[in-house]
Amino acid sequence: MTQIYNRVALIGLGLIASSMFWGMKRAGLAGEVTGFARSEDTRKRAREIGLCDVVCDSATDAVKDADLVVLCVPVGVMGAVAAEIAPHLKQGAVITDVGSVKAAVIRDVMPHLPDHACFIPGHPLAGTEHSGPDAGFAELYDNRWCLLISDCCENPAEIDRLTKFWEGLGANVEQMDAEHHDLVLGVTSHAPHLIAYTMVGVADDLRRVTDSEVIKYSAAGFRDFTRIAASDPTMWRDVFLNNKEATLEILGRFTEELFALQRAIRTGDGDMLHDYFTRTRAIRRGIIEAGQDTDAPDFGRGGKPVEKD
Amino acid sequence: MTQIYNRVALIGLGLIASSMFWGMKRAGLAGEVTGFARSEDTRKRAREIGLCDVVCDSATDAVKDADLVVLCVPVGVMGAVAAEIAPHLKQGAVITDVGSVKAAVIRDVMPHLPDHACFIPGHPLAGTEHSGPDAGFAELYDNRWCLLISDCCENPAEIDRLTKFWEGLGANVEQMDAEHHDLVLGVTSHAPHLIAYTMVGVADDLRRVTDSEVIKYSAAGFRDFTRIAASDPTMWRDVFLNNKEATLEILGRFTEELFALQRAIRTGDGDMLHDYFTRTRAIRRGIIEAGQDTDAPDFGRGGKPVEKD
Repeated sequence: MTQIYNRVALIGLGLIASSMFWGMKRAGLAGEVTGFARSEDTRKRAREIGLCDVVCDSATDAVKDADLVVLCVPVGVMGAVAAEIAPHLKQGAVITDVGSVKAAVIRDVMPHLPDHACFIPGHPLAGTEHSGPDAGFAELYDNRWCLLISDCCENPAEIDRLTKFWEGLGANVEQMDAEHHDLVLGVTSHAPHLIAYTMVGVADDLRRVTDSEVIKYSAAGFRDFTRIAASDPTMWRDVFLNNKEATLEILGRFTEELFALQRAIRTGDGDMLHDYFTRTRAIRRGIIEAGQDTDAPDFGRGGKPVEKD
Repeated sequence: MTQIYNRVALIGLGLIASSMFWGMKRAGLAGEVTGFARSEDTRKRAREIGLCDVVCDSATDAVKDADLVVLCVPVGVMGAVAAEIAPHLKQGAVITDVGSVKAAVIRDVMPHLPDHACFIPGHPLAGTEHSGPDAGFAELYDNRWCLLISDCCENPAEIDRLTKFWEGLGANVEQMDAEHHDLVLGVTSHAPHLIAYTMVGVADDLRRVTDSEVIKYSAAGFRDFTRIAASDPTMWRDVFLNNKEATLEILGRFTEELFALQRAIRTGDGDMLHDYFTRTRAIRRGIIEAGQDTDAPDFGRGGKPVEKD
């Protein structure tokens, strides 16, 4: 793999940034990688584990001479970080981000950037329930999608370059406009996360069932929700506050549909339930055929893989 | 491991029964295992893969001389199966089941059984999203819980024996009364399944987001829901129809809580969201500490395991 950027700056050193760093090293995509995290503990830990070639003590130091700057901070602080680094950007620098929401990030970041810089918002659809500098690994983006928003940047060559960079990290890249991105992610990510958080909260709160019962007997389905509901609270707070409309729209549809199923249970409409559950099975098959999940039973948690006929 | 029953009959030959069979063979728990499935295809397939020592062409043949009869059929047909086999049970036979609902099964099965037989309803909290005779494997019950309802049987020695049998299959056994079982499972299993089915149904139905987008970009959280929503439709229809009250109670609480979170999003109450998401994280930690799930990121779908500090 050939070097794509001479100097890359990672602002924020959590799961996403650290996986990008190890991925860049794996593929030789960058000459030098600088990094910055707001917390002193995170910077210290990054230095201990060799995360970034240089860990800087300020964001402005980190972005100095960087050809690519990646904002890997919660969506709610993207604007403030952009304002801070803007005067220190190299002439013609490319700025990208990894936020789960795109319209709000563009709204918050764009006004601060100098005309000579090029902003290409991005969103790698990858992650785990772990967070922090230790959570990253080079393989995180392999065969995952990375969505880029191309219409803030007037230089197609830079969009091509960033596309090759993400492909070098293992990802498949697609372009999408910001509003559609926020709706698609509302369905595939934001609403499911809120629903998982809610279900885990209800379980924690139900007086007649103890927490220890919920924990002991979680294998029956609940534990899949708890994995999602263990994701970083700050990141997710910012996602919901910044993708308000799409999230609320989908939750509205969800509630309507849930009421219809509750009604079928109450009235004993077994055919409706059976038809519904048969239809949802087909979506699962599509995801497995698209290579976006394993067919190993129970996510391969330890069960024997099944040979399919 | 010593033999616990001379002859065991499995009625229904899906994931749960086939895993019991392979588990019995692994530990030598039964002298001979007979099996029956209603579908001729399933019986044929069972014979091909050596599932059961003898596959019978009727349930009445299968239960003949059995010391333990295990009903592994959907909850909705437990009563009909019990009525069919009752006159053919061996004197003093123990009947158990593996249904996900207990009060309705007791209501449906008990009236048919002869006085000389002993009914000990059971529920192993284990499974995968796969179903059918090929889906089973010996390890399914290892370190999982099996709940037994002891109050239908007046012979404590038989409860001890069935407990040892499940322990021989690898499970941890606990006793619980039927109503409490149905509430606990409503929280840890039934409500999460209905919610997952609903979310997958909404995604399938949203006009402005295509199915292929939902499938491609599912890695962001949605795919965990689709795994749950791929479970057997007949089994789950029967679960909801037979655990109506507890499921509807929990869904009521869930909706209430979801509305509170939606309101926090709408009004921009970030502190409420952050506090909520922080609280749900603790439940996840409890589940991992209790050995009921892996701490490997993303369920170990291919990511590097994380060393925890």
